[in-house]
Amino acid sequence: MVQKIRWIALLAAAPLFVSSPFSLAQDEAGKPLPPPFAAGPEDGQWTMPAKNVASTRYSDLGEITTDNVKNLKTAFTFSLGYNKGQEAAPLVIDSTMYIVSSYPNVLYALDLTQSGAPLKWKYEPKPSAASQGVACCDVVNRGAAYANGKLFYNTLDDFTIAVDAKTGKEAWRTKMGDISKGETMTMAPLVMKDKILVGDSGGEMGVRGWAAALDQNSGKIVWRAYSTGPDSEALIGADFKPFYDSDKGKDLGVSSWPADAWRIGGCTVWGWASYDPDVNLVYYGTANPGPWNADMRPGDNKWTAGIFARDADTGQARWFYQFNPHDIFDHDGVNEAILVDIPWKGQPRKVLLHPDRNGYLYMIDRTNGEVLSANAFDYINSSTGVDLKTGRLQYVKEKETKPNTVVRDICPAPPGAKDWQPSSFSPKTGLLYIPHNHLCMDMEEVEVGYIEGTPYVGANVHMKPGPGGHRGAVSAFDFMQGKEIWSVKENFPAWSGALTTAGNVVFYGTMEGWFKALDAKTGALLWQFKTGSGIISQPTTYKGPDGKQYVAVLSGVGGWAGAIVSGQLDKRDGTAALGFVNAMKDLPDATGPGGELYVFSLP
Amino acid sequence: MVQKIRWIALLAAAPLFVSSPFSLAQDEAGKPLPPPFAAGPEDGQWTMPAKNVASTRYSDLGEITTDNVKNLKTAFTFSLGYNKGQEAAPLVIDSTMYIVSSYPNVLYALDLTQSGAPLKWKYEPKPSAASQGVACCDVVNRGAAYANGKLFYNTLDDFTIAVDAKTGKEAWRTKMGDISKGETMTMAPLVMKDKILVGDSGGEMGVRGWAAALDQNSGKIVWRAYSTGPDSEALIGADFKPFYDSDKGKDLGVSSWPADAWRIGGCTVWGWASYDPDVNLVYYGTANPGPWNADMRPGDNKWTAGIFARDADTGQARWFYQFNPHDIFDHDGVNEAILVDIPWKGQPRKVLLHPDRNGYLYMIDRTNGEVLSANAFDYINSSTGVDLKTGRLQYVKEKETKPNTVVRDICPAPPGAKDWQPSSFSPKTGLLYIPHNHLCMDMEEVEVGYIEGTPYVGANVHMKPGPGGHRGAVSAFDFMQGKEIWSVKENFPAWSGALTTAGNVVFYGTMEGWFKALDAKTGALLWQFKTGSGIISQPTTYKGPDGKQYVAVLSGVGGWAGAIVSGQLDKRDGTAALGFVNAMKDLPDATGPGGELYVFSLP
Repeated sequence: MVQKIRWIALLAAAPLFVSSPFSLAQDEAGKPLPPPFAAGPEDGQWTMPAKNVASTRYSDLGEITTDNVKNLKTAFTFSLGYNKGQEAAPLVIDSTMYIVSSYPNVLYALDLTQSGAPLKWKYEPKPSAASQGVACCDVVNRGAAYANGKLFYNTLDDFTIAVDAKTGKEAWRTKMGDISKGETMTMAPLVMKDKILVGDSGGEMGVRGWAAALDQNSGKIVWRAYSTGPDSEALIGADFKPFYDSDKGKDLGVSSWPADAWRIGGCTVWGWASYDPDVNLVYYGTANPGPWNADMRPGDNKWTAGIFARDADTGQARWFYQFNPHDIFDHDGVNEAILVDIPWKGQPRKVLLHPDRNGYLYMIDRTNGEVLSANAFDYINSSTGVDLKTGRLQYVKEKETKPNTVVRDICPAPPGAKDWQPSSFSPKTGLLYIPHNHLCMDMEEVEVGYIEGTPYVGANVHMKPGPGGHRGAVSAFDFMQGKEIWSVKENFPAWSGALTTAGNVVFYGTMEGWFKALDAKTGALLWQFKTGSGIISQPTTYKGPDGKQYVAVLSGVGGWAGAIVSGQLDKRDGTAALGFVNAMKDLPDATGPGGELYVFSLP
Repeated sequence: MVQKIRWIALLAAAPLFVSSPFSLAQDEAGKPLPPPFAAGPEDGQWTMPAKNVASTRYSDLGEITTDNVKNLKTAFTFSLGYNKGQEAAPLVIDSTMYIVSSYPNVLYALDLTQSGAPLKWKYEPKPSAASQGVACCDVVNRGAAYANGKLFYNTLDDFTIAVDAKTGKEAWRTKMGDISKGETMTMAPLVMKDKILVGDSGGEMGVRGWAAALDQNSGKIVWRAYSTGPDSEALIGADFKPFYDSDKGKDLGVSSWPADAWRIGGCTVWGWASYDPDVNLVYYGTANPGPWNADMRPGDNKWTAGIFARDADTGQARWFYQFNPHDIFDHDGVNEAILVDIPWKGQPRKVLLHPDRNGYLYMIDRTNGEVLSANAFDYINSSTGVDLKTGRLQYVKEKETKPNTVVRDICPAPPGAKDWQPSSFSPKTGLLYIPHNHLCMDMEEVEVGYIEGTPYVGANVHMKPGPGGHRGAVSAFDFMQGKEIWSVKENFPAWSGALTTAGNVVFYGTMEGWFKALDAKTGALLWQFKTGSGIISQPTTYKGPDGKQYVAVLSGVGGWAGAIVSGQLDKRDGTAALGFVNAMKDLPDATGPGGELYVFSLP
């Protein structure tokens, strides 16, 4: 009933919007909105990386507008003390800001009630130094999440930790993985009621991926679902009702692989997850199959490069959809799933939006895994689309990788048309704002043997800019109509997350170090500020104790895209950083290492 | 004749000033001014650390005033990529900014003509990593100096280097010292006509100090004057006319030491130097004698803890004055010498102002080394003053250090009432602005043996805050009247340089990371901004290509005072960092490591 009233309210509001000069992204039935559980009254906090469990990254704070954003000034800054890639989101709870640094994963609490936001406390987990050696792509951390008085986050050496938000004291720490196998942890936990969800990294090291739920109070592992292997270990049982036939069958996590290859098949869980409390389902993507050399692993390689819906309390799978069956391009499925409720062909649908590495923005019914649409948001020549009947990605034969043969000009490259950098959905415009890449590659499969704790890739890759010569963009995408509204090109991959606000401003950072504000409706550049290092993090916004709106972002280049700088890689070796260096040889001329928080406000 | 006209002009201008509500620091004869060679028309550049060879650190730019400084905003930032203590001054020549980082001493050129000041080039000297191990007090560098198309600076591993300012190509590099002996280089070169002056660091390692002049074009060493040893090596000859008897005699650099102790007696030259082109004299201070255990080295220990005037072309000493004969507190004489011309008892005098570690601000006739006045600018209990007849510092017997006995509550401590942090002289107010320390100590002499390349100190020191509990201050000092006009207390030592401007604003940074603007007349805090890390560097100001006034400063805590943070020292060991840690145990709670340029301007 609540749902019904909402749709009526929407329709009533529509004419108002139509009268504006801006052509709203909506179909005939109304406009998309975040689900009710994500759209509560704005309290000015930012308690989890994606703002809410629907992952909208939208704030209803509206003091900063398209008119006045040009007046933004730096309110204060804070040095993290570590100059590797900074990917975390600054959180704000009760007038305290919390930030997690790259390795060694220090958690800082800054007191926003005092001028200059002095350090309140810092928590130092002291992760094993050896963990740095097995991290594939810099030593990043995507930050913490808050619930019930505690901050939860992961360390590079595989601990999930809870820290008391007031005191900075460790509440518990649980060992989740094993760095000697090449397993690390970089993702931000997702809060699901009384639990948190975490997963592992290391798909390029032959680890076996998993996701796990931990009890917030005790740190006890409530369930752990492996991403490959028998159904019993993948927590696939009677409740599992995938939408497409190719995901149906017993123990596909074994049978869709050569013998035992699933044991070292990657399929980690290092990206984003969302949660729908109305149905108690968690949605998270799975990473690429290992090794990259796809001829070494015939089959669909379940449950890689797809998305699971699972019961948050039991971990039992409800459905699965595979974006990239038998992935051949390192196209992890770990990108964000943004939960919105839409009118679709006259009916309300609960969907999730997932801009995948393969270049398609998927709109999927989150109740059953049906793909409603899959529209390209960047240049793609390696597939022709998604068959909505079978759900299968349609690969282009001549772009398929081969052993000992260089296949040229495959688009998109392994980091995809979009990697981890999370999109933002604005209910005010109804658009999805996608920071993304624009990269192609030459790739050659080569033989590789598995040695525990060492790289297990089997491919020579040289990435390069996509058509037009730029390497990134931020695109405003009308997912209802399946079309781009505007796109702003970036020289380097747009490797930071996006943030939208009620002031109709889109914030994001560039790898050169510019922090930018765009007009959400037109993409016009309204303001920019040059931070000290490239930005690859997640901007957030909050209301300070003084009632003013602030925008916060970490500067510090690195990550996979920026490894040439943070890892001081030699640009003469184009295959370094799994081929990314070839496309980023000029990054060291544009920026250097850093690690700094910037907070902005109006004067 | 020029000189005479100047004094007349001064007298004529005086009534104007007297009519202001501010009581000008001046005696009956007029007001102090920088010498004519330092007071040319303001060109908006900042070509050497101290602004000019008179070391005034005063800029005639006046767009930023006491009225509008509150509106300052961050124009852009730049990450140096290294999180050790940043002590350098940002230089600006022809719309390019040049910065030198802490070890590994990267020289960056930023293009000020472009938005966000992108990197134009960087020069990486790649100093030996071993040099870090012999640096006494963090791996700082005090920056570069510019002349005739080249930037000159020193590397921690003892190279003096010239870099083409346009291209970033190395013009020459000259090896000046030997890290295997514990010798490093941290000072900024001083430009003297066609030469530069440099010196060595390492007084706590038993090195033998020297200063040297190099030819700007070729890098050839024109002269090198050792600070200890026979007159022939100290370049003391017929021209040497010290003012006081205790500096007269043959080979005092040998005879004022126990046998051979002068060979390992320190007396390095790592601080500031000034130059008077009218008489072609360079003025530079010499560091403490080694070891700190003074009972191991009876005698005056010439030529330590004093100041030399030398002919810039030949290096021949003209005069010497010893601030701290037989220094017992590590009171180097390397602090700045600011050249001003004053009326004194009815006569014009060319003087230098030197705020020494021992707590006295010396006003010395720079033509002959006569001390005109020596007034305390901080709390002192270890001496009662300077005998102006003999020039001798009057030590207090009960505060003299002893072997194996802890002498308590000696003030000031080894870093002195003031360390390297350079003062600024404003001709508009006639005051000297002294950022300084406020520290006392307990000290015990202990036996130490000399081993090449290892610490040679022989003292256990525990520093602590001075009376009142604060550890630093910025004081406006009327050196003509010998009194403080105002003083602003700081919790930590004020370890950054000061900058004054025609807008009557005093800029400096704090170890918590605040960059502050004070009213030069009253000391009132007009504006402050919280940078990412503690500030221990040298603020500068310049006119940008857009005609606006900018203020630049590096943030990045460290140096001797901040070694507990930059060196991650254990606060349980109070004697660490030569006893400084004991006084700075709370610094890690106030700030963390960083390395970032901040540039500010009005909106």
